[in-house]
Amino acid sequence: MDASEPRPPAIILVATQLPENIGAAARIMANFGLSDLRLVSPRDGWPQERAWAMASGAEWPLNAARVCTSVAEAIDDLQVVFATTARPRELALPILTPREAAGELATAAATGVRTGIVFGGERAGLETADVALCQAVVTIPIDARFKSLNLAQAVAINAYEWKMAQDASAPAAFLDGPGPASGEAMLGLYGHLERELQTAGFFHPPEKTPNMVQNLRSALAKARFTDQEVRTLRGVITALSRGRGRVLEKIARKAGEAE
Amino acid sequence: MDASEPRPPAIILVATQLPENIGAAARIMANFGLSDLRLVSPRDGWPQERAWAMASGAEWPLNAARVCTSVAEAIDDLQVVFATTARPRELALPILTPREAAGELATAAATGVRTGIVFGGERAGLETADVALCQAVVTIPIDARFKSLNLAQAVAINAYEWKMAQDASAPAAFLDGPGPASGEAMLGLYGHLERELQTAGFFHPPEKTPNMVQNLRSALAKARFTDQEVRTLRGVITALSRGRGRVLEKIARKAGEAE
Repeated sequence: MDASEPRPPAIILVATQLPENIGAAARIMANFGLSDLRLVSPRDGWPQERAWAMASGAEWPLNAARVCTSVAEAIDDLQVVFATTARPRELALPILTPREAAGELATAAATGVRTGIVFGGERAGLETADVALCQAVVTIPIDARFKSLNLAQAVAINAYEWKMAQDASAPAAFLDGPGPASGEAMLGLYGHLERELQTAGFFHPPEKTPNMVQNLRSALAKARFTDQEVRTLRGVITALSRGRGRVLEKIARKAGEAE
Repeated sequence: MDASEPRPPAIILVATQLPENIGAAARIMANFGLSDLRLVSPRDGWPQERAWAMASGAEWPLNAARVCTSVAEAIDDLQVVFATTARPRELALPILTPREAAGELATAAATGVRTGIVFGGERAGLETADVALCQAVVTIPIDARFKSLNLAQAVAINAYEWKMAQDASAPAAFLDGPGPASGEAMLGLYGHLERELQTAGFFHPPEKTPNMVQNLRSALAKARFTDQEVRTLRGVITALSRGRGRVLEKIARKAGEAE
């Protein structure tokens, strides 16, 4: 990769069942100039010889593959991450074709932003909680009459569109302003907000908490906050929740006066 | 397939070595609405169980596959046929990307013209004599550093582009989900947040308030919240700044006990 070339998206494979599919994904990644492979909890463990056998010589993505135990961990250094899934979700995330997604990723990468695409396992796909960590959903326009798409084929189409977007892209567009915050910074923001909301009794009834958390995360993810904005919002959360302290003190004081 | 839908291109696989690749090709054809499969001299003969095993249920292209002994025979009923090959040929044929090819095939098919795409074997590719039977060459934009492209992946990219060409000419496929909230709803959200932040003493020093307000608004505006999300966030602001239900009840109860 030239220093001048934008960094291609990381490919994050979640709960992959067949090492063969990981190998086939590595091969097609190499075909289109991608190399950053991350594996979240591959079913059969890692490394697996069958992956190398399927890669037909495209060994470098496999040799350098990072193994993680959660999507959150796998994307912690990435700033723009899309989730590939065929299923409509209850999340209000933008739905992109692979072509639209590649356009957005290319634009982001051209300004030095680190990007990634997440793919679910062969059978179950992605958990909604993991999709909620992403800024958009990529849906391949599969025929409704036969939806069973091979994992490596899904990687192929997205990697191909990335390459097409590169080939089409003239010198990078007007790059300005800071890029989006890292996944880690966003998780910090979510955690802070959710702790304070928990304290404030917001999550009610309790069994709805996971859904409420997901909807909040996906709403905020869409904004692609910068690091500065994340800091500001954490200040907002602190101010509002301390302010609550003062409001409550005032109530308590009044109650005391009433004694 | 509707009677009104244009007939998708036939996929012609020439001298394929692995039945698994034929099965994988059938599967991806089904994913994108293609079904007309033709096999020219498959190395191991035909039928082969391993093809069906790889098709994951996409059996109809395999069941109906026509086996031929030459490319000429396989394309004898087709009017526009393109050859997929990575190699530059001495033939003065137009070189198309899969996208350009799909556009041409879609245009032809829309007028009732019968079309096809020819793919060579895993190792040797297509004979020049067979390419010469075609009207154009389709070249997938493979990275020069790793050219070994799996056959079914080559079929995938062409089939995907066919589907995209169809979708482009149809009414927008997936416009869905609620649109962004109105400017009025967003102003309501901003006003609510800013009043509570004012109460909490967030805007400090006071002369910086207009700038701080602007930065907050522009950060939130980027998310294009839906109406539902705006309602949720207003609940978040209320909870953070006032607490919700139980917290206040607890205070009230304590105050009551103290009385």
